[in-house]
Amino acid sequence: MKLNSSFKEKVIVLGGDGFCGWPTSLHLSNLGHDVVIVDNLSRRNIDNELEAESLTPIHPMGTRLKAWTEVADRNIRFYNCDVAKNYEHLLDIIEKERPDAIVHFAEQRSAPYSMKSPYHKRYTVNNNLNATHNVLTAIVQSGRDIHLVHLGTTGVYGYGTAGIEIPEGYLEIEIPTETGERISREILYPADPGSVYHMTKNQDQLFFHFYNKNDGVRITDLHQGIVWGTNTRETMLDERLINRFDYDGDYGTVLNRFLMQAAVHYPLTVHGTGGQTRAFIHIQDTVRCVQLAIENPPAPGDRVQIFNQMTETHRVRDLAGLVSRLTGAEIAYFPNPRNEADENELHVKNELFLSRGLNPTLLSEGLMLEVTAVAQRYAHRADLSKIPATSQWRQTPKAMRPI
Amino acid sequence: MKLNSSFKEKVIVLGGDGFCGWPTSLHLSNLGHDVVIVDNLSRRNIDNELEAESLTPIHPMGTRLKAWTEVADRNIRFYNCDVAKNYEHLLDIIEKERPDAIVHFAEQRSAPYSMKSPYHKRYTVNNNLNATHNVLTAIVQSGRDIHLVHLGTTGVYGYGTAGIEIPEGYLEIEIPTETGERISREILYPADPGSVYHMTKNQDQLFFHFYNKNDGVRITDLHQGIVWGTNTRETMLDERLINRFDYDGDYGTVLNRFLMQAAVHYPLTVHGTGGQTRAFIHIQDTVRCVQLAIENPPAPGDRVQIFNQMTETHRVRDLAGLVSRLTGAEIAYFPNPRNEADENELHVKNELFLSRGLNPTLLSEGLMLEVTAVAQRYAHRADLSKIPATSQWRQTPKAMRPI
Repeated sequence: MKLNSSFKEKVIVLGGDGFCGWPTSLHLSNLGHDVVIVDNLSRRNIDNELEAESLTPIHPMGTRLKAWTEVADRNIRFYNCDVAKNYEHLLDIIEKERPDAIVHFAEQRSAPYSMKSPYHKRYTVNNNLNATHNVLTAIVQSGRDIHLVHLGTTGVYGYGTAGIEIPEGYLEIEIPTETGERISREILYPADPGSVYHMTKNQDQLFFHFYNKNDGVRITDLHQGIVWGTNTRETMLDERLINRFDYDGDYGTVLNRFLMQAAVHYPLTVHGTGGQTRAFIHIQDTVRCVQLAIENPPAPGDRVQIFNQMTETHRVRDLAGLVSRLTGAEIAYFPNPRNEADENELHVKNELFLSRGLNPTLLSEGLMLEVTAVAQRYAHRADLSKIPATSQWRQTPKAMRPI
Repeated sequence: MKLNSSFKEKVIVLGGDGFCGWPTSLHLSNLGHDVVIVDNLSRRNIDNELEAESLTPIHPMGTRLKAWTEVADRNIRFYNCDVAKNYEHLLDIIEKERPDAIVHFAEQRSAPYSMKSPYHKRYTVNNNLNATHNVLTAIVQSGRDIHLVHLGTTGVYGYGTAGIEIPEGYLEIEIPTETGERISREILYPADPGSVYHMTKNQDQLFFHFYNKNDGVRITDLHQGIVWGTNTRETMLDERLINRFDYDGDYGTVLNRFLMQAAVHYPLTVHGTGGQTRAFIHIQDTVRCVQLAIENPPAPGDRVQIFNQMTETHRVRDLAGLVSRLTGAEIAYFPNPRNEADENELHVKNELFLSRGLNPTLLSEGLMLEVTAVAQRYAHRADLSKIPATSQWRQTPKAMRPI
């Protein structure tokens, strides 16, 4: 099952043990790229902290890589390194491996986790910002022309602006002047993050802007929607390669949670009115988009290249309705722990990936049932007490002193 | 010499040992506010690292505070705490002292220092971002309605946009839509930082936006120009209260460096064409502006309040000419280590402070000669080898591999 690609590059995948990083690593390796995974196993350690675990039985990195060599006859090297803390180790790896591209997934990626407590806010800020800055500093210090591909989020746009289709990163604006003229400029889409996690991704954009401008680092930032699905062509080749599947209140993302809840006969948990519109992408398209990003680097001297990595948008209650009709599951409404509008419109451009050959994997009953089947197969591993969302966006209001 | 103020507040000054923090602390204490200084003495430690020191002989914190009590009959309490690293200590201080306002100067504030090496870039990012985030998290965790006053920089605006007077933080824009309509919005002025240091101040703005929106924290962000002058009314009361005076290539700011260079008969060092236009403020106005910010907090529910804390703009070569005419000093031109345009226009609004009673201390021969007199008095302490700027904005170009 070897795929062909005209590019054979050395690629370091930071965060290559995670939900998106692992299938991306296998996909790139299968295409013939020389893949190196760097990960500190933080996602597995957070499972320990939360006393939750992947519904699917994920294997240790050593077992995963051994299985991949047996199945695909390819080698992936692994370094256990905390890129936010161990700068010298990261720099050593870059100087030794001399990659053409670095894919950066090495950030804490759950909004509810980032809001759980002061500790979790501070961990997310410290980890995500130092990780991104260390990677950029190490690229500059290495003196090499390395293309950085970063996984961002459509959340950097906030929840959209009525009447505007969200562009790919840059917004054309006009500035009225005192003389009555208008000055046209193109700016980074104004930031309006909805959680500490999202805020760090907005702050990452400023790192990218600066290191691109000052040092000419070539950067592609992928503003990804909510990922659904669990397996890709490569992770299905052997059970030891299986991808993680999160269903808990912190790391479980909305559509996957609904499909898992249906599989274990647990009512679908909708927060607020369910009127929130979100952008989605299937995990198979995630790995394909990262491939396309690596194969289409910005030219030297180009500004930061931004792609919206999503294929469709849906309201949360519509997804609940769809899963309910498909599976017979009930829907239960809960208060929304997030501090956000009940209802929002969201229109997002994704022309750049379509123009570069992405053939989107859209929501279909077949694919949804595939997820439900995975969930049913491992239902005996589920801890239903982990399903409710417990993170609160604000502290219980205390008496505030008047001014 | 007691001043009167209708506000008597408990104020914590983070970074109260530094060039702006120390005179601010004395000014607020003199007004009758109850002042607490929190500082990790990092600026003194950086002096050790750089083998440079203040031209003026600054005294240890214990001596400073003892002198203040003797001179002014007021007490300032001091905590040695690294707010970027010691969150629990910071939280303890806030919960024990129960301040009405926190003034936040606790950031690495030199652009050249922030660009010296990978270590200095990483230190600046790690220190500044964690310091700001820790303060915000601690305010929220304390459950108290504390007004945060932060010292930012006019550098968050980049070097200005031709034809636009820089507003106070927020820019009115129009977004053209596909239907030909225009949507009006007010956004944070688009970020275009010129150094790692400036970048952290842009990233701070996103912290403020989020914690104001999510938790209702009341925040005033002061976008300050380049500070000149050395003493204020309070620091002149006793030599043990003297403020620091930096003249080295990293921490010395442009006008003070020129005045000191003139005093020691060293040619004025202009980088590039000297066509860079910068915003300026005298140290006496810095302390007065912080007072006005504390006395004019945003109302509960208000967005982040942003003031431009500067009183005039000048081209660097014009300042060099002025000092040269005043003192007879020569001017020497050197290559510009910064990665910036040779010439820029800069028009900055500062109406908010003027409307709240600031009576600006503008550049005058008398005040400039006062600085020269301070420099002459301590000229025997000068190490002329520390004057040249050595920080480079980019690495020496290495061979970049073609794509």
